[in-house]
Amino acid sequence: MEKFIIEKKCRDTKARVGRIITAYGEVETPVFMPVGTQGTVKAVSNSELRDIGVQLFISNTYHLYIRPGMDVIKNAGGLHKFINWDRAIITDSGGFQLHSLAKYCKVNNEGAEFKSHIDGSTHFFTPEKVIEIQNHLGSDIMMCFDECTSYPCSRDYAEQSMELTFRWAKRCKKFFLDTHPVDTEQQVFGIVQGSTYLDLRRTSVQELTDVGFDGYALGGLSVGEPKEIMDEIITEIVPLLPEEKPRYVMGVGTPEDIWTCIENGVDMFDCVIPTKNGRNGQALTSSGKLNLKNAVHKNDYSPLDSECPCEVCREYTKAYIHHLFRSGELLALRLLSLHNLYFLIQLVGSIKKSIRSGKFVSEKKKFFENYGKL
Amino acid sequence: MEKFIIEKKCRDTKARVGRIITAYGEVETPVFMPVGTQGTVKAVSNSELRDIGVQLFISNTYHLYIRPGMDVIKNAGGLHKFINWDRAIITDSGGFQLHSLAKYCKVNNEGAEFKSHIDGSTHFFTPEKVIEIQNHLGSDIMMCFDECTSYPCSRDYAEQSMELTFRWAKRCKKFFLDTHPVDTEQQVFGIVQGSTYLDLRRTSVQELTDVGFDGYALGGLSVGEPKEIMDEIITEIVPLLPEEKPRYVMGVGTPEDIWTCIENGVDMFDCVIPTKNGRNGQALTSSGKLNLKNAVHKNDYSPLDSECPCEVCREYTKAYIHHLFRSGELLALRLLSLHNLYFLIQLVGSIKKSIRSGKFVSEKKKFFENYGKL
Repeated sequence: MEKFIIEKKCRDTKARVGRIITAYGEVETPVFMPVGTQGTVKAVSNSELRDIGVQLFISNTYHLYIRPGMDVIKNAGGLHKFINWDRAIITDSGGFQLHSLAKYCKVNNEGAEFKSHIDGSTHFFTPEKVIEIQNHLGSDIMMCFDECTSYPCSRDYAEQSMELTFRWAKRCKKFFLDTHPVDTEQQVFGIVQGSTYLDLRRTSVQELTDVGFDGYALGGLSVGEPKEIMDEIITEIVPLLPEEKPRYVMGVGTPEDIWTCIENGVDMFDCVIPTKNGRNGQALTSSGKLNLKNAVHKNDYSPLDSECPCEVCREYTKAYIHHLFRSGELLALRLLSLHNLYFLIQLVGSIKKSIRSGKFVSEKKKFFENYGKL
Repeated sequence: MEKFIIEKKCRDTKARVGRIITAYGEVETPVFMPVGTQGTVKAVSNSELRDIGVQLFISNTYHLYIRPGMDVIKNAGGLHKFINWDRAIITDSGGFQLHSLAKYCKVNNEGAEFKSHIDGSTHFFTPEKVIEIQNHLGSDIMMCFDECTSYPCSRDYAEQSMELTFRWAKRCKKFFLDTHPVDTEQQVFGIVQGSTYLDLRRTSVQELTDVGFDGYALGGLSVGEPKEIMDEIITEIVPLLPEEKPRYVMGVGTPEDIWTCIENGVDMFDCVIPTKNGRNGQALTSSGKLNLKNAVHKNDYSPLDSECPCEVCREYTKAYIHHLFRSGELLALRLLSLHNLYFLIQLVGSIKKSIRSGKFVSEKKKFFENYGKL
């Protein structure tokens, strides 16, 4: 069964437009995926996500396993039902969270022992267990269990870790095949690791593609490395990924990074920027970034972005949103989160259009002429 | 020009159904008014308020004067435009906030000097200034400047304060007349004070009605006095207010209080309970109150209130909302605030219906048979 269809390729770059087929609807690619770690995209409701055209968001194995726990979600009939979301869900495997969040994490060949960041209780994740959890969640796209390295990372450690991630990926794939019918609509993606070492990344790609996955992600980026290094890895490694499968760069999503990713043939990306920075007062606009907490907006009765047709820009002014932030009002967090998500969704939509119409290069130029203004 | 029309009186009680006419639409009474102190009903958007049928909410002179300040709102073209709300707005005068919030407040016959709770700056409110501010805000219904007493309050202080509030009310009325055309659609309400002393309350009613206002409010309630005392004041004093004018009990709004108020001929009430208690995890339901933070809801996949047709009850379960609270997710605050507001709006709607159909007494009995269940 076809799970990914490429509909159009850019004539000037590696960009492409396609569709991922899931049991919860089709997802047009390239796709920006909002982050709903705990089963909710922070400050935003599911109906708002639907309204702005979100077809897929990313939730998290580690977080949901820890809280509310698998029984609660299994008894609800899976994550879609628990959170009332009738479109697609991708779940990260928890590898990144063990690295960044767990109080204690001891990795061996078998898996990872860790203590919950909530109550300190001890748990053990294996590749099989992580797929099993994602089975219970009912994720449309599951991620293999991986070890995410920090930046900087020694070559030795990066190599060992990449090989461990590969062995885990093979076990994930095996367990996935053992627990799903051949014609399952669910998908499992492998995660390329190797830190900043291009040769390790290349080996990782080779090994993972030999096993074969429904899609491939670059993990271990956006962990503090300089932007040039991230860009180099994307530019060098993404083209090595199988062309006929979705390609996903994890944790990436500034407007600049989105253009870079898509130009290099990436189909999927996720990032907390629109919601996290939104809660901190930052608005993404076609002219650049604004900080709505700044006094300069006190008397500015124009919308966040005069070119933006979103509900927030139609209904509210910078002066009002500035007032809401200054007054500590929750509505401020909602409005900027919603606008920022809309902005990125709409940006990716317009990039898709430019690929279809053969205008990717000129549209990119136009975007940055304007985006640099602020 | 008619500003209030009574359409139906209950045959068994003092309850009535009517309409307040404003430049921003008609307001059916009895009406529960959500509290939007700083120009936003906490955690809820204006379009959500519209969707659940809010026709009028209460904002605050003191707060908006302090922040964002009158220039910002004047330049926006008034409060309706500043916050993008095309229905009616009532504004409290600031008397209660000087009493509860200002860092320092010195009252004399002329007015009240106080320091802002935000930056400590010194300001002086007079009755004239408070009406002028409400003029700039463009409030559809303005409240006279009053002194709100604490509970308990000595008889001497209550008497002096009530007389001061009366002198201020006269000055408010005069300034209102001086600054508005005869056929203005705006309204100004007097505030009955007198603490817990029924005779002082009666004198206050007599004095205010001699001056004549578009409506009358009971102030200084819900400030810590026992419920029986509040009920006695409502029962004894409300019927003394002119029948042909709207009657407003300030700061009141539990389901129990709403029934008591309406039964005694009250047309308007406002309360932070639906939003404030909602943010603390409390849901109002037809069976009583629930605390969604309680572990008992962890596996409960039913809606907050199975009889409630609101968006929150249609879309989400107690188990999910419990998870959102436990996880510190902002959506939790939104969902309970919205449901609770809907619950009270819908409750008042059904009470209105019962008055029209002559079934107030039996509907009240039915409500409390169910409401006591939890």
